[in-house]
Amino acid sequence: MLETTIAAIRPPDESAMAAARELQGRLTKPAGSLGALEELSVRLAGLAGHCPPPLPEPAAVAIFAGDHGVHAQGVTPWPQEVTAQMIGNFLAGGAVVNAFARQAGASVTVVDVGVATPLPATGTPAGAPLADGSAGALAADGAPAVPLTRPPADSLSARDAPRLVAANVRPGTRDLAVTAALTREEARAAVETGIRVADELIDAGAGILLTGDMGIGNTTPAAALIAAFTGIDPAETTGRGTGVDDPTYARKVDVVRAALRRHDPDPADPLGVLAAVGGLEHAALAGLILGAAARRTPVLLDGVIAVAAALAAAALAPHAVAAMVAGHRSAEPGATVALRRLGLAPLIDLGLRLGEGTGALLALPVVTGAVRVLHEVATFDSAGVAEK
Amino acid sequence: MLETTIAAIRPPDESAMAAARELQGRLTKPAGSLGALEELSVRLAGLAGHCPPPLPEPAAVAIFAGDHGVHAQGVTPWPQEVTAQMIGNFLAGGAVVNAFARQAGASVTVVDVGVATPLPATGTPAGAPLADGSAGALAADGAPAVPLTRPPADSLSARDAPRLVAANVRPGTRDLAVTAALTREEARAAVETGIRVADELIDAGAGILLTGDMGIGNTTPAAALIAAFTGIDPAETTGRGTGVDDPTYARKVDVVRAALRRHDPDPADPLGVLAAVGGLEHAALAGLILGAAARRTPVLLDGVIAVAAALAAAALAPHAVAAMVAGHRSAEPGATVALRRLGLAPLIDLGLRLGEGTGALLALPVVTGAVRVLHEVATFDSAGVAEK
Repeated sequence: MLETTIAAIRPPDESAMAAARELQGRLTKPAGSLGALEELSVRLAGLAGHCPPPLPEPAAVAIFAGDHGVHAQGVTPWPQEVTAQMIGNFLAGGAVVNAFARQAGASVTVVDVGVATPLPATGTPAGAPLADGSAGALAADGAPAVPLTRPPADSLSARDAPRLVAANVRPGTRDLAVTAALTREEARAAVETGIRVADELIDAGAGILLTGDMGIGNTTPAAALIAAFTGIDPAETTGRGTGVDDPTYARKVDVVRAALRRHDPDPADPLGVLAAVGGLEHAALAGLILGAAARRTPVLLDGVIAVAAALAAAALAPHAVAAMVAGHRSAEPGATVALRRLGLAPLIDLGLRLGEGTGALLALPVVTGAVRVLHEVATFDSAGVAEK
Repeated sequence: MLETTIAAIRPPDESAMAAARELQGRLTKPAGSLGALEELSVRLAGLAGHCPPPLPEPAAVAIFAGDHGVHAQGVTPWPQEVTAQMIGNFLAGGAVVNAFARQAGASVTVVDVGVATPLPATGTPAGAPLADGSAGALAADGAPAVPLTRPPADSLSARDAPRLVAANVRPGTRDLAVTAALTREEARAAVETGIRVADELIDAGAGILLTGDMGIGNTTPAAALIAAFTGIDPAETTGRGTGVDDPTYARKVDVVRAALRRHDPDPADPLGVLAAVGGLEHAALAGLILGAAARRTPVLLDGVIAVAAALAAAALAPHAVAAMVAGHRSAEPGATVALRRLGLAPLIDLGLRLGEGTGALLALPVVTGAVRVLHEVATFDSAGVAEK
């Protein structure tokens, strides 16, 4: 499935991009006056293969949640149980991602791809597989394959309660400071879970996917992934995550550096990198990105977890970058390192470092606006406005 | 009226700001993880005088349109008629500001505060005074006072057609390269028109005002205003506007520099500065900002025209800055000079230089999101999420 998805990812359509550039020049505004929005509209035309590209509606946020064996190294002051507790908060609609999603009219899908502690009881049957006959995730470790939900076509609405998809590959990664975080099979299962979620959301009508994540400790594997894929020193890819103190930060850098030395992951083997130092949510997000790219659907990246996953996706399929839109510049330094490598300029830069998909949601109206201009703005000819 | 408005502008409420800071610390997210949105929510609580401040809804864009005698100096390649033609485009819903306003759910009000050429025929009685008995604008030059419309309470909807308010103080400014652009009385009339528009939009229910502008040639007076209020050299406050070529740009800088030398405006006399080198839309926008501040209502600034006007408003009433939110960083260099002086950090920085209110509209969801967090996000206690 991973291989067929990668094979389906095509380069952008140059003629659609040329048509979008030409149209931008005829609209009632000075040439170039919409700045980065003009080039964004051109990129999205190239991705869609026609001009104008479809409005990126409705929007679907997919929050992949996982836990991390490296939590044992004291890289974060937050207890691991907070991952599961925050899933409860997402499903109850009480988190920042929910507030922003309601505002943006985006649906929220929470995917348990590797939470270690029991999920709290909610109105949704938490942790239970939501069966409908679609193909199951390739669960590893002997666990039964977990069917994912194919949401009904009318479920992609911000008015609906957030959905939980049970697709736990394993209850948290192993400690990357000690051993490989995942087997190759587990990493692949998580990636393919992400592909499947992308397919199902797009089948249900989503016009754009937004990456979300939850996982106490997950900025540590993100820093390791970014260092592994870019060759940049861990001191420059590692940040303070939720705001750790100096001793914790120093320990975190040491853990990342030691893990890279121990595993020596090969950036030409992206699944191997994800297995050695990644997280289940990072791997699943890489799959979500690949799945969106294969369907010529834009994927709006959130913060440092997303861009670490994006490096993995780009290593697996370089043309996947054409489907990526950088939502914001996370305060985590690794995000800037990764965005630079991907050649992506973020739309929002407000010092956010929350994750969940919050930065992507703030950027969504910019993406929609960029495309809307191609659909709705009058030309000089049609409006009877003189040109210079 | 100007004096009573200025007298009504109070400093922000420190206790509401403290309450907002305290609430931010209890919400289910790491402290500080919403970056600039947290301080924005605190500022808006201070402006409103309570916590949480009201959601900034509905939003109303006010586009002030005027022409400029300095057009005769060849500072722009666009014909002056484009100002009136673009008003027709706004009223027909075909401009970028319309597309963004529909997306954001904002109403659009176009105010002819000084267009020089005939307005095109539209469904709206273009240029006709819309009488309802409200006080009229203080028109100068012997023209009859122009009554402004008090919009019905249900008119502040993006579903309604854009409205035109006829409040033409004079048909374009005089050429600031030759003489003062406006008399003091004309400048005051334009400022008071802006105050009145603010009052009427807020009376009709607006929770936030967005600045818009249209006026071929209006970046030249903006550059002069910014240089006059900040003391920064015109070479640093003057930009390429709609994208002028090198000779035109050099001429534009010379025009601004010569005008400042000729008029030597005193920044301690803001009306005098507006009269000497301003524009009618700049003056009216300064009034809109003052009117919003007096009503403790946030005003979201667009680009270089707006921030030039904001310098005038701040010179008239320093506490008006508390009502200002910088929507975006225009590509015009003068915008950055003015924002620095105002102490405002822009929310969006995407190289836009279109005006109309487009940059403010792109930033609106960020402002709304910042306030929404205070209304809707669960606390650690209420959500049963552990703290670090």
